Amino acid sequence: MTQNIKEMQQQIDLLGLTLRPHTKAHKIPALAQMQIDAGAVGICTSKLGEAEVMAKGGIHDVLITTPIAGAVKYHRLIALCKEHPKTVIRQVIDHPEHVKAIARLATETGIEVGLLVEVESGQMRCGVMPDESLVELIELINRTEGVRYDGIQAYSGHLQLVKGYQVRQQTAFDAVRDVFAFIDTTLAPRDLKPGIVSGGGTGTFAAYPGLGYTEIQSGSYIFMDATYAAIGDELCDVTNRQFSPALKVLTTVISHPAANRAVVDAGMKSLSIDLGMPKVTTYPEVTYQCGGDEHGILHLPEGHRQLKVGEVLTMLPSHCDTTLHNFDVLYGVRDGMVVEQWAIEGRGRSD
Amino acid sequence: MTQNIKEMQQQIDLLGLTLRPHTKAHKIPALAQMQIDAGAVGICTSKLGEAEVMAKGGIHDVLITTPIAGAVKYHRLIALCKEHPKTVIRQVIDHPEHVKAIARLATETGIEVGLLVEVESGQMRCGVMPDESLVELIELINRTEGVRYDGIQAYSGHLQLVKGYQVRQQTAFDAVRDVFAFIDTTLAPRDLKPGIVSGGGTGTFAAYPGLGYTEIQSGSYIFMDATYAAIGDELCDVTNRQFSPALKVLTTVISHPAANRAVVDAGMKSLSIDLGMPKVTTYPEVTYQCGGDEHGILHLPEGHRQLKVGEVLTMLPSHCDTTLHNFDVLYGVRDGMVVEQWAIEGRGRSD
Repeated sequence: MTQNIKEMQQQIDLLGLTLRPHTKAHKIPALAQMQIDAGAVGICTSKLGEAEVMAKGGIHDVLITTPIAGAVKYHRLIALCKEHPKTVIRQVIDHPEHVKAIARLATETGIEVGLLVEVESGQMRCGVMPDESLVELIELINRTEGVRYDGIQAYSGHLQLVKGYQVRQQTAFDAVRDVFAFIDTTLAPRDLKPGIVSGGGTGTFAAYPGLGYTEIQSGSYIFMDATYAAIGDELCDVTNRQFSPALKVLTTVISHPAANRAVVDAGMKSLSIDLGMPKVTTYPEVTYQCGGDEHGILHLPEGHRQLKVGEVLTMLPSHCDTTLHNFDVLYGVRDGMVVEQWAIEGRGRSD
Repeated sequence: MTQNIKEMQQQIDLLGLTLRPHTKAHKIPALAQMQIDAGAVGICTSKLGEAEVMAKGGIHDVLITTPIAGAVKYHRLIALCKEHPKTVIRQVIDHPEHVKAIARLATETGIEVGLLVEVESGQMRCGVMPDESLVELIELINRTEGVRYDGIQAYSGHLQLVKGYQVRQQTAFDAVRDVFAFIDTTLAPRDLKPGIVSGGGTGTFAAYPGLGYTEIQSGSYIFMDATYAAIGDELCDVTNRQFSPALKVLTTVISHPAANRAVVDAGMKSLSIDLGMPKVTTYPEVTYQCGGDEHGILHLPEGHRQLKVGEVLTMLPSHCDTTLHNFDVLYGVRDGMVVEQWAIEGRGRSD
């Protein structure tokens, strides 16, 4: 994990970019601080609840990458900014309603909130189109007291897991070309050029040097799950060799009812399966099948040596983010010894 | 929820069976107590960690339905039995290793642990075959000090979600017919007939009257997720009308970037997708698409009225167990008002 942190920072530095790691992968302020200590400018969180955890945990620069809505959330955002006046807290938005509601409360409280406008970058999720609607939203921010136009977010989440390095880099570049063209042809001449352009991820960061991104939001590189490891990098088109899988789940063999079948005590509530099955790193030739909430069924190839009931196996999750979300504590292991433990303070903070 | 608890107890009573609800669905001792107060004999937990929560929470009869293994777990099981001498704690096992390890520690501690042998019932997960290996395991328990042969578990988890009432009932019956035949032809004559036969679930309980089950482990009926609601019951082959969906997730519209697309703030870390997509109960004509860990993308049919940014929608999860596992608190709602709240004490206790 520490090697991954160092490696990504070096790569981002070499590309002449700035790193703002997405911490939804780990949700632990101490790890966010390690990323900042390695050279990151600050961090991203997906949710306001995670931002509350990070600000309370001493992180001084937080970008909330998902729009918020509803009176309760707006009040919480303003309260968070007020409680941490020395922390830079920025909020991504994509609708006039966001601007007006945040501005009204900010003005009442006597503060100013920095906003990033999310721009459609091929994902068809949140985000305004890079057309006149973007101009109108920026102009609304600029003429509204209590909010500040800090830049835009252009994140193509749907491309992070495209397999094959070359095709992913080209697709990622193509997905945001219109956004940067619009900045040059329309925003810049009107003096609306964004100060910050934030986006990119573990899959796509290398596609963006020189394009106009000022911050790269890569987050999954810290753990590198089986899905990310399989997308390839510039060294190999089918395996990512730049980063190493660092999040493992230990599971115990609890049953061995047949020569070709054993059962472990980790099911969907330990190893999420939303991006496929986890890998059995102890025995790569053994495959894992989800056996329900609490069981994993292992299929042994013919002639494989029998496992021992009670034997502990190491599993590599297919999706780190949703796997870690099942646990309350992360253990730091070095040379086979547990040397650290961190409460996953942001777990469950999807609020 | 309270109506579902009452309804299942009535149905089980009418079938002449006994209910031992599986509490992995809710993981809350107070709800387990409500099920017992309604007439259940005790409860099931999937894991030792959940059993610790339930015993500590005052539940006096607990069956742990998944085998355990490894010295740490065996010690914890014995400690749990010792700390709660008035609580009946039974453990499901399927291997001589389980019997020997539990017996050794139980004898040292001066207690006796009740064991149920899991028998293969078509799921191909844990469980010995209903043949001589079952006889040998029962005889091992019977001649080993510190453990007690209390019965068997025959659970066909893979059939719970078979669609169509008639086909599910027949398939469920067929899956365990061999087990009961073996009990009659082989175990009974040798005086090894199980005192307890535990199994069945929300999908299959009605298939088992008269077959030999002494306890039904239904659990999901308390909440009835979208997947369970779609399997049908005796009243309707495609919808379950006996039980009502009771677990809902509230989510807020955070973005509405296009007329046919809105975004809500609940993704995979709130509404699990392992059994498919959740339903939008507020607008049944709107479909939910997973938009990542923290986003849900709503697709509106042409001409649908636009949603308001900040509007709160009600979602019906596709899978209650893994959805509830994302949260720390469950709120009890009656007539639109929050009247109760329960800490989900067993959340994360897959240990």
